[in-house]
Amino acid sequence: MNINGRHYRTIWLADDGATVEIIDQTKLPHALEIVRLRDVSDAARAIKTMQVRGAPLIGVAAAYGLALALRADASDGAMASAIEMLSAQRPTAVNLRWGLEEVRRAVAPLGPDQRATAAYAMAAGMADADVETCRRMGEHGAALIQAIATRKPKGTPVNILTHCNAGWLACVDIGTATGPIYTAHDAGIPVHVWVDETRPRNQGAALTAFELGAHGVPHTLIADNAGGHLMQHGKVDICIVGTDRTTRSGDVANKIGTYLKALAAHDNGVPFYVALPHSTIDWGLDDGRAIEIEERNAGEVLQMTGRLADGTVAVVEIAPPGTPAANPAFDVTPARLVTGLITERGVAPASAEGLAALYPEHAR
Amino acid sequence: MNINGRHYRTIWLADDGATVEIIDQTKLPHALEIVRLRDVSDAARAIKTMQVRGAPLIGVAAAYGLALALRADASDGAMASAIEMLSAQRPTAVNLRWGLEEVRRAVAPLGPDQRATAAYAMAAGMADADVETCRRMGEHGAALIQAIATRKPKGTPVNILTHCNAGWLACVDIGTATGPIYTAHDAGIPVHVWVDETRPRNQGAALTAFELGAHGVPHTLIADNAGGHLMQHGKVDICIVGTDRTTRSGDVANKIGTYLKALAAHDNGVPFYVALPHSTIDWGLDDGRAIEIEERNAGEVLQMTGRLADGTVAVVEIAPPGTPAANPAFDVTPARLVTGLITERGVAPASAEGLAALYPEHAR
Repeated sequence: MNINGRHYRTIWLADDGATVEIIDQTKLPHALEIVRLRDVSDAARAIKTMQVRGAPLIGVAAAYGLALALRADASDGAMASAIEMLSAQRPTAVNLRWGLEEVRRAVAPLGPDQRATAAYAMAAGMADADVETCRRMGEHGAALIQAIATRKPKGTPVNILTHCNAGWLACVDIGTATGPIYTAHDAGIPVHVWVDETRPRNQGAALTAFELGAHGVPHTLIADNAGGHLMQHGKVDICIVGTDRTTRSGDVANKIGTYLKALAAHDNGVPFYVALPHSTIDWGLDDGRAIEIEERNAGEVLQMTGRLADGTVAVVEIAPPGTPAANPAFDVTPARLVTGLITERGVAPASAEGLAALYPEHAR
Repeated sequence: MNINGRHYRTIWLADDGATVEIIDQTKLPHALEIVRLRDVSDAARAIKTMQVRGAPLIGVAAAYGLALALRADASDGAMASAIEMLSAQRPTAVNLRWGLEEVRRAVAPLGPDQRATAAYAMAAGMADADVETCRRMGEHGAALIQAIATRKPKGTPVNILTHCNAGWLACVDIGTATGPIYTAHDAGIPVHVWVDETRPRNQGAALTAFELGAHGVPHTLIADNAGGHLMQHGKVDICIVGTDRTTRSGDVANKIGTYLKALAAHDNGVPFYVALPHSTIDWGLDDGRAIEIEERNAGEVLQMTGRLADGTVAVVEIAPPGTPAANPAFDVTPARLVTGLITERGVAPASAEGLAALYPEHAR
């Protein structure tokens, strides 16, 4: 993606060929700060404090973190303790352990003097693989946008609604739900994005609005409440969201509020697509209602972070002191409300048959 | 309603029998401040700056404002200019002009020495009439809550979801959508209220959470995104919301996001009720899609108001500088998604036939 016309990934090897650089996402959208990770403890802190976030990016950051650890000490003992320490930073992040396990498996058989170099290569390969996965999803999803564009008056933008940030900032480049948007935009298809604010953590207002703006994609921020009204009035042509976990039958767990937009899309005949790499599919789960939903800190509902008039960043309390709050982090959209799943292998109907056709190796 | 165990209305005649006191709603939920309106310009400022807000309360405040004006000068000219000045404070508030016109019609035939006294009596009567209307809606709605309570295990609270603030603070006492809640609570029926934050203006977090908390009604604040998930998991027994305008066919214009909750209620078999005094029904309008929706200031989406750590109230910007935002203030929920309309005459199906049966004087 571009920021001020310059191409960035969300994580990259620094010019010294050893340290790693990231965009500090905790500072967005109020400041763009590049942070250098010099050792494994820097990487651990970046993961824990969510300077890097999003499943694909966490996996790559963990792999680079292990490479940094092995650069300092490539012994079996040091490797084991680095893996343990990094794993503990985000206990529920599946991709974190997956990234570390991938590197461990590749470098453990090697002699200590070869391990760091191999780990850097693995991390770089994982980053490239994520970019390629998003690129393919982007191509398949952009074809859907193109098809809508051809049905609209020439030059009229295709209006796309998205929720949360399944974006470039959650991945290494272009993103999952945003992949089709950037691909279409870069191909000259006129697009306009309705960005759901995405309370309570405001990933839409803080991250999606930032990355779309930085890349020059026309967009408008809206309260999460507004999407249904926009769909009733023909102002949304397609919804594209990401997912944290999708069942083999096509039920989609995603950021809280996704289900409400899927209902509105269904009620108004607006196609509702979910973009996902196959790693997000839980082949062992049939029914989305079985997915346990994380209850997060009530403080996220009770507080907001933003810039004061003087530019300093502050947290404000918005409710009466002592107000109880609940904060379910995700909801599950049943497959019946999902028009299709955009994967790196193509677009599938949101059903067991649809997914099995694209991924026959997982068919029962 | 009670605050710290003491009963309050939202507006009342002060002990001196001449000035008028209100709760300054712009300070809520961060401070409870009583403001005294000493003359018509105080009343005008209170209306303009939304120290008083909500259609019924604005009507009563305008009537008291005119009484204050007539107390100072009851001549025809002074009365006309006071009406003109007060009307201009909220140009689109129907109740404002209605309240002023009611007083004018009653006092214009009187001699100037009788006008102020008559205007105070009119204003007090309008306040009492609003209380009585809400009391009746409260009784009819509480019967619905009672019926649910009898089907639940004894002592289990009835979980009610509400959106925005159709509350005591928008009226003179107990409110429209909150009327059934307070009535049930005061009758000893166990209730628990899910309070939608209601972005972008946060009336739920700021006002509904405040008034429920002050009166001692158990409640939990949630992001607007959470309601669908709660309904999927059986955690909502009934939704009750207010309305700004309801068509003769039962389509309901209310705060943006209401439609999304109605969709979720319908999808999960949760009854969805709208509480409204008959003055909210637009008998001249059949189709809710014809209702023009106000587009409000983008700043409401881009900013949040709250308390800093030191207790001072501040505004923060939450999105990247220069982010475009859209802010439709209301949406329309089609009658097919509304289980029933709670009016002061009883509960009607959301249909032309349902409303005509309760209000035969308006039947075509």
